[in-house]
Amino acid sequence: MKPLRPALSAPAAERLPTSAEPDPTQWRRGFPPPGDRLIRIEDGALFRYPQLRWSFSHARELGPTKAVWRGDGAVAPLNSAGQGIGGLSFAGPDGAPLTLAQSLAQTHADGFVVLHRGRIVHESYAGEGAAHRPHIWMSLTKSLIGTIAATLIHDGALDEGAIVSHYVPELARGAYGDATLRQVLDMLIGVDYCEDYAEPDAQIWDYARAAGWLPRPPSYDGPQNLHAYLPGLRKKGEHGKAFDYKTVNTEVLGWVVKRATGQSLAELVSSSIWAPMGAEADGYFLIDSTGAELAGCGLASTLRDLARFGEMMRCEGEFNGRQIVPAAVVADIRRGADRGHFKAAGYSTLPGFSYRNMWWATHDARGTFLARGIHGQSLYIDPVAEVTIARFASFPLAANRHNDPLTFPAYRRIVDVLGS
Amino acid sequence: MKPLRPALSAPAAERLPTSAEPDPTQWRRGFPPPGDRLIRIEDGALFRYPQLRWSFSHARELGPTKAVWRGDGAVAPLNSAGQGIGGLSFAGPDGAPLTLAQSLAQTHADGFVVLHRGRIVHESYAGEGAAHRPHIWMSLTKSLIGTIAATLIHDGALDEGAIVSHYVPELARGAYGDATLRQVLDMLIGVDYCEDYAEPDAQIWDYARAAGWLPRPPSYDGPQNLHAYLPGLRKKGEHGKAFDYKTVNTEVLGWVVKRATGQSLAELVSSSIWAPMGAEADGYFLIDSTGAELAGCGLASTLRDLARFGEMMRCEGEFNGRQIVPAAVVADIRRGADRGHFKAAGYSTLPGFSYRNMWWATHDARGTFLARGIHGQSLYIDPVAEVTIARFASFPLAANRHNDPLTFPAYRRIVDVLGS
Repeated sequence: MKPLRPALSAPAAERLPTSAEPDPTQWRRGFPPPGDRLIRIEDGALFRYPQLRWSFSHARELGPTKAVWRGDGAVAPLNSAGQGIGGLSFAGPDGAPLTLAQSLAQTHADGFVVLHRGRIVHESYAGEGAAHRPHIWMSLTKSLIGTIAATLIHDGALDEGAIVSHYVPELARGAYGDATLRQVLDMLIGVDYCEDYAEPDAQIWDYARAAGWLPRPPSYDGPQNLHAYLPGLRKKGEHGKAFDYKTVNTEVLGWVVKRATGQSLAELVSSSIWAPMGAEADGYFLIDSTGAELAGCGLASTLRDLARFGEMMRCEGEFNGRQIVPAAVVADIRRGADRGHFKAAGYSTLPGFSYRNMWWATHDARGTFLARGIHGQSLYIDPVAEVTIARFASFPLAANRHNDPLTFPAYRRIVDVLGS
Repeated sequence: MKPLRPALSAPAAERLPTSAEPDPTQWRRGFPPPGDRLIRIEDGALFRYPQLRWSFSHARELGPTKAVWRGDGAVAPLNSAGQGIGGLSFAGPDGAPLTLAQSLAQTHADGFVVLHRGRIVHESYAGEGAAHRPHIWMSLTKSLIGTIAATLIHDGALDEGAIVSHYVPELARGAYGDATLRQVLDMLIGVDYCEDYAEPDAQIWDYARAAGWLPRPPSYDGPQNLHAYLPGLRKKGEHGKAFDYKTVNTEVLGWVVKRATGQSLAELVSSSIWAPMGAEADGYFLIDSTGAELAGCGLASTLRDLARFGEMMRCEGEFNGRQIVPAAVVADIRRGADRGHFKAAGYSTLPGFSYRNMWWATHDARGTFLARGIHGQSLYIDPVAEVTIARFASFPLAANRHNDPLTFPAYRRIVDVLGS
C-alpha cells in the first residue's frame, strides 16, 4: 500500500482497479498503524476504495454515531436449515459457469445471508465482514425510512398530498417548496443536484461534506450540517414528471418524519422496527455535528438484522408474532409506481422497474422487490419463492450496474432452486 | 440556556454553579436543535458543564468510537433482591440527615446500582442515564486497563521490572525512557504534566486535543494523535518516589499492553473481561483519529456491566462460573501499595489510601478498594460486607474531593446496613 494523498473528493473514474487489492483486514493494524495503513475521515476514507473495504464494517470508528437500541425484549431467532447452496452454479456474464461462492468473492461480498421460509439456508462473511459487526447499509437505509414514512401516511400521521414545507417551513424557498410528500417518497423531484459517484464535482459530495462525513478543505465555508444544507438546494425542471434518484430526497423525507413525530430517526427505527422485530443487536446511524441522522445512507447493522427486516417485509409486515408494518404498506411497495416515470432514468440493468416508497419494484410475476445501496448492498425479496436475500458488500465501484450482471443471475438461480 | 462561546479549554474555576441548571434531557432536542441546545465537540462539550450532563451518556454521538463486543455467549443474570435502601439515611456534610435518594440527586448521579452478594438491592437512573445506555467511565477505565496489565504480568506476558521502552521504543527519549512498568502501573512517575482540571493551561487538555476529543484552535500544530503525543512528554523529578496521578501514565500502559499482545484494547477487554463475564451489552472506547483507544478515560458501558466488572473483582476474579482475573491479581490490588508514596499527594478525602495497579486501596479493615473517575464515576467494593456499588454521575466539578463528602457517608451507611 502506498501512502495516500488527502482526498477531498471521490475517485474520478468508475473503472475496476487493475492492481492487486490490499488485504482489507490490514487497515489500521499496528500501534500506531504505519502511514500506509492509516484510514481516516480526513482522507475521505468512508467513500474511497480500497479503504471502504474496511470502512464499511467500521464506520463508527470514523465519526459520530447514534445507537438504534434493540430494546430489551427477546431476540427473534433465525434458525438454520443447513448450508447447502454455496456450490449452486449459474451462467456468469461471459457465459461460463460461476458458483455462488465465486460470485460472492468476485463482487466483494462482506456478508451474504439467504432465508427460505424464514430459515437460514446460507450465511457467510468475508473481508472485514463478521456476523456480530454492524456494516453500513448505504441506501438500503432509504427503504427503511421510506417504509416508516409510508406507515405514517397509512396511519394518518402524514399526508402524502401535502407539500413538504407544510411540515418543514425552512424548505419553502428551495427546491422542495412546491413538492408533495408523495413526490419525495417516489423520487419524482426536479432538483439541481447530481448523484453521480464517478464525478468529483457532483453535489453528492457537497452533501457528504455538509454532513461531516467527507473532509472539508481548509477554505470550506459551506453548510455545517444537513439541516443547513437542504434549504439551499434549488429546483431544476418539474416535480412529478420523472424518477430521478437523489439521496437528498430521503434527507428531506427524514426531516419531515422527525418534525411530524417529534422523534429522532434512531428513536423511530428503534421503537417501530428494531424492538418489535426482535433485532439481535443495536444498530447505529451516522450523524452530523448537530445529531441529525444521515437518512439517505447512514444506518449500520448486523447482516442478520438486515435479513430480519427483509423477512418482515416479505411476510407482509408480520414478523416475530406481530404486525410491524401494515400489510397495505408492503403491498403498495410491491405494486410499485409508474414504470413510465422510471424508464427515462435509463437503468440498463433494471428493465421495467419502478421506485415506490424508496424501494425498487421489479414488476415481475413473482412480486420481487428490492432495496439497493452503492457498492453492492442489497436486500432481495421474492414472495413467491419465500426467499429473502441480504447482502453487504464493498465492491470497488459505487454504481450497482457494475455488479448487477454478477449478482442478479445468482439471486435468480437461488430463488429458482429454493422456490421450485 | 444562553448560546455558548466556542470553548477551547475547560472552565477555569472549580466552583459549583450558582444559576439553575438546564434540563440535561433537553440538549440536542429539536430538528435541528436551537442554537442554545446544540452540543458539539467543537465546543468542548465532553468536558464542559452543564453539557457534560448530556455528553457523558452520549459520548459516541460526539466522535469516533470502537465497540467492545460482548461476545455471543449468554448474559450473566443480575437478579434483584428487592429495592429497599433508597430511604436509608445518614449524616450529610452539615450534620443534618440525608437520605440516599437525596444524596444521589445532590451528587448528580446518572445511575446507581448496589449489589449485595451478587443481587441487585438498588438500581436507579436519572438525567440522561438509562439502564441500556452506555455512560462514560472516565478514569474507571484506568482500573480496568490496570487489571488487564497486572494479569499479563501475572501470566508472564509482561515484566513489571522492565523499562517501558523495552516494549515501546518510541518512548525511550521522553519522560518514560527510564521508568519501569511497575512505576507506571502505580503512578510513581515524574513527568512534566499537570492533571488539574480546574486549570485551563493544564497538559490534560493538550492530551485531550491530541486525542481529538477537545477542539483544536485553528493555529493548532500539535500532535495529531495519542501515539504522537506521548513520546514528547518530558521527565520532571524522579520516578519511584511518590504517587502522582496522571492520565498519561495509563495511556503509556495501554500502549505497552497493545504492543505486548498485538491486540487493540477493545479486543483485549472484549476477550478477557467482557465476553467471559457475560456482559449484557457492547461497551465502547473513545478513539483518536488513528483508532487508538483512550486508555485513561475512554470506556463507556451500561451501569450493570460496570457492576458485573466490580462484582467479579469483589469475588476475587471469579464470576459467571469462571476465573476471569487471577485471584492473586485481585489480592495484590486490595493489599495496595506504599502509603508513604501516596501521602504526599495530599488527597484530603482519601486518608491512608494507596494506589496499586490503577486502583485506589483504602487499607481499611474490610479490604475496601475503589475505582474512581472525575465528576463522580465510582466503583466501591467492600469484600467483608459482600457489597459492590457502581455509580455513574455528571457532577459539575471534576475533582472527586467535591463529592466525596456526600458519597462516602452514603457508601459507608450502605455497607453497614447490608453487611451487618
